[in-house]
Amino acid sequence: MGSFKGHALPGSFFFVAGIWWTAKYALWHASRRNKNLGSTRLSSRVSQRRLEVIESSIVIFFSFVGILAEQFADNGPKLHLYDSVEKHWEDLMNWQHTTMYLFFGLAGTVTLILHTTEGAPLATDRLMLAMAFFNEGFLFFYHLHGRAMLDVHVHQLLLYAIFGEALVSFLEVFHRGNIVLELLRCTLTVLQGTWFWQIGLVLYPPSGPDWDQKDTGNMMFITMCYSWHLAFAMMVVSVIYCTVSCGVRSRLKRTPPMEMGLLKPRDRDPESEDEVL
Amino acid sequence: MGSFKGHALPGSFFFVAGIWWTAKYALWHASRRNKNLGSTRLSSRVSQRRLEVIESSIVIFFSFVGILAEQFADNGPKLHLYDSVEKHWEDLMNWQHTTMYLFFGLAGTVTLILHTTEGAPLATDRLMLAMAFFNEGFLFFYHLHGRAMLDVHVHQLLLYAIFGEALVSFLEVFHRGNIVLELLRCTLTVLQGTWFWQIGLVLYPPSGPDWDQKDTGNMMFITMCYSWHLAFAMMVVSVIYCTVSCGVRSRLKRTPPMEMGLLKPRDRDPESEDEVL
Amino acid sequence: MGSFKGHALPGSFFFVAGIWWTAKYALWHASRRNKNLGSTRLSSRVSQRRLEVIESSIVIFFSFVGILAEQFADNGPKLHLYDSVEKHWEDLMNWQHTTMYLFFGLAGTVTLILHTTEGAPLATDRLMLAMAFFNEGFLFFYHLHGRAMLDVHVHQLLLYAIFGEALVSFLEVFHRGNIVLELLRCTLTVLQGTWFWQIGLVLYPPSGPDWDQKDTGNMMFITMCYSWHLAFAMMVVSVIYCTVSCGVRSRLKRTPPMEMGLLKPRDRDPESEDEVL
Amino acid sequence: MGSFKGHALPGSFFFVAGIWWTAKYALWHASRRNKNLGSTRLSSRVSQRRLEVIESSIVIFFSFVGILAEQFADNGPKLHLYDSVEKHWEDLMNWQHTTMYLFFGLAGTVTLILHTTEGAPLATDRLMLAMAFFNEGFLFFYHLHGRAMLDVHVHQLLLYAIFGEALVSFLEVFHRGNIVLELLRCTLTVLQGTWFWQIGLVLYPPSGPDWDQKDTGNMMFITMCYSWHLAFAMMVVSVIYCTVSCGVRSRLKRTPPMEMGLLKPRDRDPESEDEVL
Repeated sequence: MGSFKGHALPGSFFFVAGIWWTAKYALWHASRRNKNLGSTRLSSRVSQRRLEVIESSIVIFFSFVGILAEQFADNGPKLHLYDSVEKHWEDLMNWQHTTMYLFFGLAGTVTLILHTTEGAPLATDRLMLAMAFFNEGFLFFYHLHGRAMLDVHVHQLLLYAIFGEALVSFLEVFHRGNIVLELLRCTLTVLQGTWFWQIGLVLYPPSGPDWDQKDTGNMMFITMCYSWHLAFAMMVVSVIYCTVSCGVRSRLKRTPPMEMGLLKPRDRDPESEDEVL
Repeated sequence: MGSFKGHALPGSFFFVAGIWWTAKYALWHASRRNKNLGSTRLSSRVSQRRLEVIESSIVIFFSFVGILAEQFADNGPKLHLYDSVEKHWEDLMNWQHTTMYLFFGLAGTVTLILHTTEGAPLATDRLMLAMAFFNEGFLFFYHLHGRAMLDVHVHQLLLYAIFGEALVSFLEVFHRGNIVLELLRCTLTVLQGTWFWQIGLVLYPPSGPDWDQKDTGNMMFITMCYSWHLAFAMMVVSVIYCTVSCGVRSRLKRTPPMEMGLLKPRDRDPESEDEVL
Repeated sequence: MGSFKGHALPGSFFFVAGIWWTAKYALWHASRRNKNLGSTRLSSRVSQRRLEVIESSIVIFFSFVGILAEQFADNGPKLHLYDSVEKHWEDLMNWQHTTMYLFFGLAGTVTLILHTTEGAPLATDRLMLAMAFFNEGFLFFYHLHGRAMLDVHVHQLLLYAIFGEALVSFLEVFHRGNIVLELLRCTLTVLQGTWFWQIGLVLYPPSGPDWDQKDTGNMMFITMCYSWHLAFAMMVVSVIYCTVSCGVRSRLKRTPPMEMGLLKPRDRDPESEDEVL
Repeated sequence: MGSFKGHALPGSFFFVAGIWWTAKYALWHASRRNKNLGSTRLSSRVSQRRLEVIESSIVIFFSFVGILAEQFADNGPKLHLYDSVEKHWEDLMNWQHTTMYLFFGLAGTVTLILHTTEGAPLATDRLMLAMAFFNEGFLFFYHLHGRAMLDVHVHQLLLYAIFGEALVSFLEVFHRGNIVLELLRCTLTVLQGTWFWQIGLVLYPPSGPDWDQKDTGNMMFITMCYSWHLAFAMMVVSVIYCTVSCGVRSRLKRTPPMEMGLLKPRDRDPESEDEVL
């Protein structure tokens, strides 16, 4: 998968996933905060559950497509693992990517089961997500032996985002529904997405000359570039969060709820938010 | 203990322990969740305590057997530590394994005391388990000097499972009874068990040629193989958990409890679970 | 920015920020503790919010000034990033410092928005602060290739303070208002401030001979010197905290509150503090 | 301080401190648990506070004595830091040990102030303890350049205990009064004490030949020996805890409390303990 497309494709997926998660959590958070304005119409528990079911079905579908693509593409291993004639492993890269997709598929499957049946511990979905990200980072980590300096460096920077997401997902096992952690996870997902694009542009530039893989200036620039990607991801998440929050509030204001008696004074909101967090 | 059997034996123990723990915690969790169906018959506090006493007795017994086997096997040190004639330490490997068993024996002893007497802080059993796993990982960590690359690598991968278990056990000191953490510990225990088998198969292949200890392809395959073991462990634990949960529920439904008045509506369960976690 | 002034300037900023934060948190903590003495006059929620708005405006202003200074100073890059004629990056140092200021500016902007609008999750300001410090440490960390031993060492020691602050700020997301964490953050900020001065004095001594960058004695002294800076920072923070606390209490005692009936016995205070923490 | 006595002395201090802390926390825990038996006579809040004041006074006294001994012993620097004639630092080892004592002295001073005045946040004493241990480990960590392999190794092992204590003390800021954490800290303190003795015996054997500093067998033995010290420390702490607990309970049973009506049934104790932790 060492090509520009091979990095742009997962990058786009993570970028879209980050944006989608931000919108979802912003919507839920806004409707939880504006309960007194009747926002339960927007995100009841039943509709939340339906959304989770749809999301995890999509995750499973794309994981499956990814596995098939890795295995049966032109130069894929086609489920052969060991070439016993020439005594070497077949296309280990493709098998590693297959394994990564497998874990995201497993996470999707568990989430699907959790939200269609009763009685399973809900927090398991975050644990599975943490495992999937940890596994991705784990495979990338042992994947870099003997490459050029800049190549190693851009992949190492990627690990910050991946292990960061694994850690945040694990923390969510204990702090489920904490909007700050959720937005942090969204930010890191967007960061991972844009950084995959950056890796593709650096290692396989579609136009112009190749980058000098041993230049210290390039190393320093790439490091700083990572910070810019982070800042960009933070801004993307902020803008989406604010847009959704304002949208929910303005829409709720136009259609006043039935039970006006339950309306609490607006100025108490910040404190209650503080207590919840 | 550098032999296939020397790795398969502890592997089998951890594998069985992981499965046993999964069944135990699944049973307890299911009966806690179905209290309104009268599940206290299945796992009252008294029977839980009895189970813990039996379990820790078995742990103590096998630790003791392990220590005796390490010391008094054919090439064991027979409690001699230092050969003052030839001025070298005797069979340090056996002594290290003895030390590992000793810590698991201590953890078993403390658990036994905690559940037979009153007034001791319960959470100490998880701390002792964390210490036993930490000590195992600690000794393995300083155990790898001067070995071949693949040998070092497979043992390093083992450390992820061991230190992971130590960390999860330590977190359980603060989050006792969190089913997600308990299942994670079970998963890592099963992983440790199957990985011990894998190490045995890689370093001392019972049939076929030896593995090339310096081949990068082997390194990359082994890393990916670890992910597969993790996925396998996750599936084993999931299947056992689901089977036990469904079994408890179906058995409880057939024998309705006395006090029907306390029956809460079923659809409230997921939320209450959420709150508990 | 490799000059004495270039280290003394940010050092002074951090030093002042640390002292200011200590005074602010000490004031708020003292007035929370002495609520029964009518201290709400000193720090009502409205005045707290106004203070936060002023503080974050100042942070934004100085971040902006810092960015301009880095870019348009004599030898600054003037927003040029790549010299396509000579094929090298322009003044990467200045761009890195610009990036650091950018993140502090972003943190200030988010804090400003949080305290002027309603409905945003308050804990986000600590997350942004953690991100700003993490980014600072991240850029310093990859900034040290190929420098002299002592140069690398003094900057590595700086990382303890920076990453410590990032960690403490992140913990404050979950433990907002914990005075111990807040004072720890203040201490580390003062430490960072004085250590920037120390770095300037070691690397660019304004008088006297240069330091021998390869002497082990210098290394050992600098390490110990860092401990002294920490002790000094702890003492500065303690003295300010005590002064403010005593000041608030004595001032409150002179002007008795209206509602004497709500006065609780003084000797219950320590316990209640204990419960709060 | 490179001598047997120089390691045995601090070792003895830590050993005694660990035993003393175990007895103290066991007593407090036992009297908290047996409140219904009237144990408040044994450890009222006033007597607890008095004990803390005495303890921190002793800590301050010995820190001060330690500083004086380091500075004014035969080969001490006598407060001279830099020899400007020969251009080198004077007795940096002694200065480093002075710094370590200084931090423990500061921790003692803060504890003393916290327990004699009102209104300071109690958890600060654990933070200061964490800082003192962190500083000790920090100085040891940068203290090992260019020594022999075994020398480095035994000091590295010491760091596990020291940083472990720093971490546990820091956790106690949030989980004050958690007996499991307190006993873990006691265990690590005893471990540090006995390991200082072991270091003295290995590096400056009072009788017999010197240890071969480059022998791998010695390295492996020392690692295992550390585990044995840990097991020994765990046993020492357990025995003291059990003795004090039983002592408190038997003494309380002989002298029945006044208010028998408040006596709760004994068999509820384990659960309530579970809830507290």
